[in-house]
Amino acid sequence: MYTAVNFEEKLAKIADQWSPKIVAQLNDYHIKLVKLQGDFVWHSHPETDEAFFVVAGEMFIDFRDGAAKLGKGELLVVPKGVEHKPRAEVECHVMLLEPAGTPNTGDAGGDRTVENPEWI
Amino acid sequence: MYTAVNFEEKLAKIADQWSPKIVAQLNDYHIKLVKLQGDFVWHSHPETDEAFFVVAGEMFIDFRDGAAKLGKGELLVVPKGVEHKPRAEVECHVMLLEPAGTPNTGDAGGDRTVENPEWI
Repeated sequence: MYTAVNFEEKLAKIADQWSPKIVAQLNDYHIKLVKLQGDFVWHSHPETDEAFFVVAGEMFIDFRDGAAKLGKGELLVVPKGVEHKPRAEVECHVMLLEPAGTPNTGDAGGDRTVENPEWI
Repeated sequence: MYTAVNFEEKLAKIADQWSPKIVAQLNDYHIKLVKLQGDFVWHSHPETDEAFFVVAGEMFIDFRDGAAKLGKGELLVVPKGVEHKPRAEVECHVMLLEPAGTPNTGDAGGDRTVENPEWI
């Protein structure tokens, strides 16, 4: 009945990069896993903070006034309304925490938007 | 300005077991780290779900109708109102996600309650 979500098993099911998948729900928040490589688009989330936690690899989050580096086992909360651009040189596996319905591209939109992430 | 939270560094600062410490805030949610060993008290959180993610070691969450085992890299969301009792044979390091102000002992109270977790 109460079965833990194994991140490694879930990540093995994800084929495409930059496409978050939902693995759990906490009240009205989704816990998602995503594989990142290369540069994403600049965007912000006007209504919410967004947490990144690196499960494997390393990534950077560019801000207009600097950049943060996140290695395995490191977490960063991007404050709401702050422009940011995730990037990773080598494929990086990340847990995202944010309210259900938060679009990955925030206020930027565009063809990399995932409207309704799949549950895996 | 934007510095990642390193879980290993934060955990090294935690001396006491069963005493969650806050490491980040996501909107009105706290992201906490805690060291567990032995049995906690039966309790539930009538107002909120609660997420457990094992960073190191393994733990169990007992329910009235069974138990869940969580190893490193595994996550479980305990639904609101559901009685549960965390336990660990060997010290286990866990990330907790729940709304700020959620007491660790839920509706049970008692002398193991941490009213205002410290930020580390």
